[in-house]
Amino acid sequence: MDMPSPDLSILSRKAEIVARLQSVLPKNAVIHAESEVRAYECDALSAYRCPPLCAVLPTSTEEVAASLRVCHEMGVPVVPRGSGTSLAGGALPTADCVILGVARLNGVLETNYDDRYIRVQSGRTNLSVTGAVEAEGFFYAPDPSSQLACAIAGNIAMNSGGAHCLKYGVTTNNLLGVKMVLMDGTITEIGGAHLDAPGLDLLGLICGSEGQLGVVTEATLRILRKPEGARPVLMAFNDNEVAGACVADIIKAGVLPVAIEFMDRLCIETSEKYAQAGYPDCEALLIVEVEGSPAEIDEQLAVILAIARKHDPVELREAKDADEAARIWLGRKSAFGAIGQISDYMCLDGTIPVSSLPMVLRRIGELSAEYGLRVGNVFHAGDGNMHPLICYDANKPGDLELCEAMGAEILKLCVDAGGCLTGEHGVGIEKRDLMTHQFAPQDLEIQMAVKDVFDPTWLLNPAKVFPLNASQSRRIAAE
Amino acid sequence: MDMPSPDLSILSRKAEIVARLQSVLPKNAVIHAESEVRAYECDALSAYRCPPLCAVLPTSTEEVAASLRVCHEMGVPVVPRGSGTSLAGGALPTADCVILGVARLNGVLETNYDDRYIRVQSGRTNLSVTGAVEAEGFFYAPDPSSQLACAIAGNIAMNSGGAHCLKYGVTTNNLLGVKMVLMDGTITEIGGAHLDAPGLDLLGLICGSEGQLGVVTEATLRILRKPEGARPVLMAFNDNEVAGACVADIIKAGVLPVAIEFMDRLCIETSEKYAQAGYPDCEALLIVEVEGSPAEIDEQLAVILAIARKHDPVELREAKDADEAARIWLGRKSAFGAIGQISDYMCLDGTIPVSSLPMVLRRIGELSAEYGLRVGNVFHAGDGNMHPLICYDANKPGDLELCEAMGAEILKLCVDAGGCLTGEHGVGIEKRDLMTHQFAPQDLEIQMAVKDVFDPTWLLNPAKVFPLNASQSRRIAAE
Repeated sequence: MDMPSPDLSILSRKAEIVARLQSVLPKNAVIHAESEVRAYECDALSAYRCPPLCAVLPTSTEEVAASLRVCHEMGVPVVPRGSGTSLAGGALPTADCVILGVARLNGVLETNYDDRYIRVQSGRTNLSVTGAVEAEGFFYAPDPSSQLACAIAGNIAMNSGGAHCLKYGVTTNNLLGVKMVLMDGTITEIGGAHLDAPGLDLLGLICGSEGQLGVVTEATLRILRKPEGARPVLMAFNDNEVAGACVADIIKAGVLPVAIEFMDRLCIETSEKYAQAGYPDCEALLIVEVEGSPAEIDEQLAVILAIARKHDPVELREAKDADEAARIWLGRKSAFGAIGQISDYMCLDGTIPVSSLPMVLRRIGELSAEYGLRVGNVFHAGDGNMHPLICYDANKPGDLELCEAMGAEILKLCVDAGGCLTGEHGVGIEKRDLMTHQFAPQDLEIQMAVKDVFDPTWLLNPAKVFPLNASQSRRIAAE
Repeated sequence: MDMPSPDLSILSRKAEIVARLQSVLPKNAVIHAESEVRAYECDALSAYRCPPLCAVLPTSTEEVAASLRVCHEMGVPVVPRGSGTSLAGGALPTADCVILGVARLNGVLETNYDDRYIRVQSGRTNLSVTGAVEAEGFFYAPDPSSQLACAIAGNIAMNSGGAHCLKYGVTTNNLLGVKMVLMDGTITEIGGAHLDAPGLDLLGLICGSEGQLGVVTEATLRILRKPEGARPVLMAFNDNEVAGACVADIIKAGVLPVAIEFMDRLCIETSEKYAQAGYPDCEALLIVEVEGSPAEIDEQLAVILAIARKHDPVELREAKDADEAARIWLGRKSAFGAIGQISDYMCLDGTIPVSSLPMVLRRIGELSAEYGLRVGNVFHAGDGNMHPLICYDANKPGDLELCEAMGAEILKLCVDAGGCLTGEHGVGIEKRDLMTHQFAPQDLEIQMAVKDVFDPTWLLNPAKVFPLNASQSRRIAAE
């Protein structure tokens, strides 16, 4: 993956930049020692690494604004960072950038159960948002796998989803408002604790904008009352395509499970060795979970199980109690970690129409054979959000490049199937050069012109989202 | 309401403009006789009227593009129009504009039940989208009161909702993609039949943009499987505030009816005289509807009725059969028409946090007494979307201005209660000068800069959404 050469004039001014930042921030908020900035050299797409010039950890919106003003005045690029769990390199530094981490902005500002919202600082982790309201019987719905660690700021940047977004939607469906700081230090508020907004819907634009438009420091989030109960069913099949067809039929029937998760043989076997969830020996597993009162659960599962039986399942296992439910989920939740134990891998994130699942799964199998790289499939099948894990050997010269090439083919396949390049991980650096496969030049031009409005200097989160040559020309033109 | 003076140089070129439009469109597609353009002089906010220069009725995206190119070259403003049902003056012409009506773009382009979407031309009416898929057991969820007449183009422009949007969301939650033509004639596609989108979420921005950014000619819409059944309950109370508190408690309990509609005494009595729905004598009525299987309906209603009983109801009437259900809805659906029989009225559209309902209803009552104008309240209470109907006499000098002043106070009250100026009707001309009450100058500046990206000439749907002086300066600067 090409990265722009660092601006040498910025590197030569490091001491001055650090001093200016120190002058507007608390003492321990500027990290600049070479050994310490290494902590920020990558995010969860760890194949790519580059230590930043320095990092700042402000504790208030005003300190974020002060940091951005300094960088804006001095022409220094800024890479915003939540918890660094991006799988698309969304928080990857450049050598000449300041990392702006929001981790210390982690407080709860307001909870309102009557109007069902919570207002938090953006560095708060996803799971601790639910933690702040669960005693009252509420929860925050989007649940990325990294929810223990990932920050709301990153969830907003990537429009994150999770296993349960089939029913509850992704971040954009659960976000009511933000406080955001623009690159020039202007503080702005968008949306609020109400539905809809007059004028242009900038909130929808901000959500998923990957740190290209501003740094979100506060968020107002919809909270929901916890359902009475939930029950997963494990469904085993001897064919990926049949499992895919079963998913399509469930969706077509109009029942709405909270989650439909898919795992193929590589993921099943690997996670079984790692976590011993008691999964059966089969080619493909589905975990389908429904929610509600016991009567509602029974009714929904009756429909779903009837559909599954028509697809010649190896096994249908309905959780009898909380223990069995937890075991059914255990293997799925361990899958990424388990694959990580046996191989380096790159996790893709394409979205396709659900009816294309069988075709896309078959084609991924063919590509795996062609490239000689194993692929594990574990993903949110109900909304067509694929997560192929391509295994490669980071120590074998050329293997990463092979993996990248295969990943690009899979993502193009998703686009050609009527889908798109990303479901919830974002474009980051990983998919930026594939954007021309998704968008016509004039469509990309409009997106970049919208970025011009918020960040005319193109200093914010450089070399990401847009094709590198396009964003670099824009940056140079702005100088 | 101030409107800009027409550009005399455009009026003087009418013959040339009409000829140019005729040269790119079918013969009967350009309407220019003075008697005929009167049909386009207003939308459903009929207090304001102005015949346009002429109107065009293209039948394809290419004809829309050709029309826009002509107007762009000749510097003529364009007002896009769906079915003209806007309650905010969203399709009000200026004397120097070309009305671009999409009514003839009304075909179904594709239905896909596996992936649950339909692709239609944007002039298709809302109800006929459901009409195209109901034989297969599907429906399109957003259901504005005007759904028999209103066009999908207008639904997208205003991000329309309806009685059932409490459960299913508004247009933005049901829109997957659009084909859109920019003011300069560029045809662009945004979104598609998949979740999420890489890069900036322009689809969210387009939805609700009130014809400021482009003219949508095709839309890909989510369709849903029809629920097994639905059942409304009528709840009568002797106090508006108590009814409001009951709504807040239902929402707080976390049950999700598909609709919670509210009517106050003026609306109840007027619609009862008009439609004889058999409503009881009371101060406030709620209609709460739930959906699902008979068991699911029973379970949800049990929770809801238990909450209602705590609020000392005059009557709780659960529909026993389809006839009784239809009668319960009849009065609500007739309310606007019934008020229209006894008085001229202006229908407002503000959104507030649900917990503020009792306070806002009380304050509206006080304002009604202060201004000496009757107010009927009939609205989507579940999501805090208020529709106060202010009665006035169009033939009494000064009464419209009094009504406008009172409307402005009510909308400011909504903003101050933590809500916003509009739920689903849009800003249009009606609320454009109140935008400064909702937004700080720099926030409005960003919105207008985003408009610059799509329509740098500011020729599209002039004098709306943004405060008149701001949009006029922008237009002049662009010339």
